[in-house]
Amino acid sequence: MDNSKIKQHISRQFNEEMEDIRNKVLTMGGLVEQQVDLATKAFMGNDMENAEKVVQQDQYVNEMEKDIDHECTEIMAKRQPAAFDLRMLIATIKIITDLERIGDEAARIAKMTMRLEGADYYQDKYYEIEHLLNLVKDMLNGALDAYARNDVEEVIAITEQDAKVDREYTSITRQLITQMMENPRNITRALDMLWAARALERIGDHSCNVCEQVIYMVKGKDVRHLSREELERTVNSVR
Amino acid sequence: MDNSKIKQHISRQFNEEMEDIRNKVLTMGGLVEQQVDLATKAFMGNDMENAEKVVQQDQYVNEMEKDIDHECTEIMAKRQPAAFDLRMLIATIKIITDLERIGDEAARIAKMTMRLEGADYYQDKYYEIEHLLNLVKDMLNGALDAYARNDVEEVIAITEQDAKVDREYTSITRQLITQMMENPRNITRALDMLWAARALERIGDHSCNVCEQVIYMVKGKDVRHLSREELERTVNSVR
Repeated sequence: MDNSKIKQHISRQFNEEMEDIRNKVLTMGGLVEQQVDLATKAFMGNDMENAEKVVQQDQYVNEMEKDIDHECTEIMAKRQPAAFDLRMLIATIKIITDLERIGDEAARIAKMTMRLEGADYYQDKYYEIEHLLNLVKDMLNGALDAYARNDVEEVIAITEQDAKVDREYTSITRQLITQMMENPRNITRALDMLWAARALERIGDHSCNVCEQVIYMVKGKDVRHLSREELERTVNSVR
Repeated sequence: MDNSKIKQHISRQFNEEMEDIRNKVLTMGGLVEQQVDLATKAFMGNDMENAEKVVQQDQYVNEMEKDIDHECTEIMAKRQPAAFDLRMLIATIKIITDLERIGDEAARIAKMTMRLEGADYYQDKYYEIEHLLNLVKDMLNGALDAYARNDVEEVIAITEQDAKVDREYTSITRQLITQMMENPRNITRALDMLWAARALERIGDHSCNVCEQVIYMVKGKDVRHLSREELERTVNSVR
C-alpha cells in the first residue's frame, strides 16, 4: 500500500472505532431505559419477578460502562484525537457515568420492591408515580436521541421538562406527607413511594447531565450550571 | 536553545501543568470538605448564616469543576499524554464530577436548613447525624489524601468505612420511622433528618468513587463494581 492508502485505511478504522463507541453507548442507553421502566412498573405492580430481573441486569449496565470507558481511553492513547473527536470521547466517558447512575437508581427501586414483598399494597395510589416515570423516560429518551444524532435542537425542551419533574416531585412529596400525618399506618409505604419518586427525580437530573454533555460535544461549550438564557444562546449559536 | 533544552523545557512545563491540576483538585476538595461540614453543622445548629454561606459558595465549587475540566481537556489536546499522565487526567475529570456532586449534597442540606427557619427545632436529636458526618468526612479526607500522594494504601480502609456508613444510615432511618409512627407531629422534622442522613450517605458513596479513580490512576486497573477480595488483590498488586 502506498502512503495515502495507509492514511485512508487508518482514518476509516478510526471512524469505525468512533461509530462502534456511539453504538455501544446507545445499546447501554437502551438497556438503562428498559431498567427504569421495568423497575418502576415492578414497584407499582408489586411484581417480584421483574424486580429481580432489574437487579440481575444491573451488572450488565456496569459491565457496559467499564467496557466503553476502556475503549474510549484506548482510543485516546492510541489515536490522540483532537477537536470534535476528543470532545466526543470525553463527553462519552461522562455520559456513561450518568447512565450507570440511572441504572443504579432503577436497581434501587427494584431492591425496594423486593424488600416489600407481601407488604400492604395500594394499587390505586400510583398515578403520580406513573406520571413522573413517563416524564423522565421521555427526557432520557430525548437525551439519548440527541447523542445519537449529534443534535442539540431538542435539549432545551428536555431541560424544561426537568422543571416539570421537580414540580411533580414536590407535589408528590407534599401529598405523601399529608397521608402520613393522617394515618401513621401509612408511613412505611408512603416513605417507599417517596424514595421511588426521589429516584425518578434524580433520573431526570442525570438525563439533563447527558444533554449538557451532548451540547459540549457538538458546540464545544461547557454549559453546566448556566442559566436558561445562557443555555439557549449556546444551543442556538453557530459553531 | 538546542533541541535537548527545548525538550527539557517542554517536559518541565508539562510537569508544572500536571502539578497545577493536582493542586487545583486539592483546593476544590478542601472547599467541598468545608461545605459538607458547614452545611451539616448549620442543619444541626439551625444556623441560617452558615447555611446561606454554603449555598453561596456552591457556585465556586461549580466554577472550579469547569475550570479544572477545561484544563485537563486542553492538556489532552495539546500534549497527547500517555500512560500514567493520561490516566491521571481521565481520573481527575471523574473525581471532580464526584466532588461537585458532594458539593451539591452539601448545598441540598443547606437549602433544607434555610427552608426550616423558625420551624420546631430539636437540639438533642442530632447525635447520630453528627456521627455519620464524622464518618463521611473521614472518608472524603482519606480519598483526597490518596489522590494527593498517589497512594492506594489507605483506600481499602476507606471503602470498608462505607459499610459502616450504610449500617449507620439504616439504623438512623429505622429510628426516625419509629419516631414518626409514635408521634405524627414529628413527621416533617424526621423527614428532614432522613434527607440529611441520605445526603451524607451519598457523600460516602462519592468518596468511594474518588478512591476507585485513584486506584485506576495509580494501578491502571478499573476496580469499579468489584468484590472486596478483587479490590484488595488489585491494591496489593505490584504494577
